Amino acid sequence: MAENKEIAVGIDIGGTNSRYGVVSESGEVLKHDRFPTRSYPKAEGFVRAISRKIKEILAEFEGYTFKGIGIGAPNGNFFRGTIEQAPNLNWEGVIPFVDQFKKYFSERVVLTNDANAAAIGEMMFGGARVMKDFIVITLGTGLGSGFVVNGDLVYGHDGFAGELGHTFVYLDSGRKCGCGRRGCLETYASAQGIKRTVFELMAENTQISELRDLSYSQMTSEHIYHAAQNGDRIAKQAFDITGHYLGIKLADAVVHTSPEAIFLYGGLAKSGNLILNPTIKAFDDHVMNIFKGKVSIRSSELNGKQGAILGAAALVWKRRKS
Amino acid sequence: MAENKEIAVGIDIGGTNSRYGVVSESGEVLKHDRFPTRSYPKAEGFVRAISRKIKEILAEFEGYTFKGIGIGAPNGNFFRGTIEQAPNLNWEGVIPFVDQFKKYFSERVVLTNDANAAAIGEMMFGGARVMKDFIVITLGTGLGSGFVVNGDLVYGHDGFAGELGHTFVYLDSGRKCGCGRRGCLETYASAQGIKRTVFELMAENTQISELRDLSYSQMTSEHIYHAAQNGDRIAKQAFDITGHYLGIKLADAVVHTSPEAIFLYGGLAKSGNLILNPTIKAFDDHVMNIFKGKVSIRSSELNGKQGAILGAAALVWKRRKS
Repeated sequence: MAENKEIAVGIDIGGTNSRYGVVSESGEVLKHDRFPTRSYPKAEGFVRAISRKIKEILAEFEGYTFKGIGIGAPNGNFFRGTIEQAPNLNWEGVIPFVDQFKKYFSERVVLTNDANAAAIGEMMFGGARVMKDFIVITLGTGLGSGFVVNGDLVYGHDGFAGELGHTFVYLDSGRKCGCGRRGCLETYASAQGIKRTVFELMAENTQISELRDLSYSQMTSEHIYHAAQNGDRIAKQAFDITGHYLGIKLADAVVHTSPEAIFLYGGLAKSGNLILNPTIKAFDDHVMNIFKGKVSIRSSELNGKQGAILGAAALVWKRRKS
Repeated sequence: MAENKEIAVGIDIGGTNSRYGVVSESGEVLKHDRFPTRSYPKAEGFVRAISRKIKEILAEFEGYTFKGIGIGAPNGNFFRGTIEQAPNLNWEGVIPFVDQFKKYFSERVVLTNDANAAAIGEMMFGGARVMKDFIVITLGTGLGSGFVVNGDLVYGHDGFAGELGHTFVYLDSGRKCGCGRRGCLETYASAQGIKRTVFELMAENTQISELRDLSYSQMTSEHIYHAAQNGDRIAKQAFDITGHYLGIKLADAVVHTSPEAIFLYGGLAKSGNLILNPTIKAFDDHVMNIFKGKVSIRSSELNGKQGAILGAAALVWKRRKS
């Protein structure tokens, strides 16, 4: 065997299931599995159980140097190593997640929110390998974002920077958002957002659509994607509207940090050109002159791979300039 | 005399006049003056003349160590040392301003846009001395902004980051902006913006106002400020509306970089509570929950001082992490 290769464990915390895997420094997921988050009413129990599991797996990687654990979690705070009031998790309050893992591991344990992990993953293993200024947008149930400036992730003074999903499409009006306000981008551009748009369109017009046979509870963004691929006009229009809002708000976002690229990652981003084309069009139509032609909007190179695991693992290797 | 103290020259380029001064490392403006920008049809002539003037003045500072020249300029590009297509300057095209100065000075010459210079000034000599994440908003003829993240100014991949004046208050509607689009924040929150609001209010209602005696060309934001201080209702309402739009868009801005403070600098910011109070109210009413109570909005500590000169000079001492 050659000299020891480095590995890290990436964990992506989800409401129902978490996914974890062993990742090489070159970005290969050597082994991965899922773990039932919802079976653990307390975070301590979850951490104890998944730590045991990870130690079992690491035993198979003799001859590798284990560098540590990276965790992407909803409402994860990098500075404090905590998960704070995450609405989709069973665990309430502020959870000292990193400290809990450190009971079982002496190696580096790093945590941040899932969109930030995606951005670090893009920088280490994806399309941003040679970039210092870019944005990753995660289009899942909600809309998350990770901003990289001058080669460093932007955490802000409190660790909560990058909440692009909660910028206003409309002021004091528009759709009600989970954050308690109205008109947030995430209520338009996300898996939930596109579904709301489909329901608005079904109410507004009389076009025939296979989506009319699904209840609100049943419908997912995959249904909308497949309908659009079958030529369903309501589904296609819903993608156009979603991209329209997203593109305009990305035009607003670039004036803050002037990135050279914006990567779309996650569920809805996997729809490819259906979401990319209208987003790029709206962006080009609205972006300020001095940024025109400079910002590339594209699919994340981690889409379709174990991107969330890769991003979380990348946290272990990526150290912050200070 | 004690050991040599450091000094730098700060130059603030304006369309009509430029201001320059000699600044000590502790932020004292030891000497300052103005220089007629508009008298020089070519940038080369301006640079030659002001350089001669600066050398004369530096001769008075024997026993000090001269560290270099910092320049704040409209459309100034830090990476390239250029002034690019500045609409308010006589000089057209892309001007290699730093290179032109380097013909006359062997010391460090640094250039950035005026809002970025204000942000560096606030960090070295103002209210942001102990901060790593903050925003400076300059409320002049237009609205400029400088973002500091993790102790470094955000330049973006091309040097043009921080154009908050050109985010949308309204999508595809609202006031026509100098940038060619509609609905930009700067058309509402700036010296020009508040004047447009006054004219809208004079058209809409019949309230008596001393501002009705001034033409559009005559009226400045100082007139509006003085009218508001005299209890003029249209003027006061114009400040409230200006602050309202500014506060809402600042609520949008903080989700990008999560600053601990936002400083208002420049002409309109000198109106103090007239602009601060409605801005803070609108911000508090609209900011996302997780940022509530965390972000302080206040007047720049450089207001009323030779702030633009201080900011420009600060560029010489502030080096970028890399």
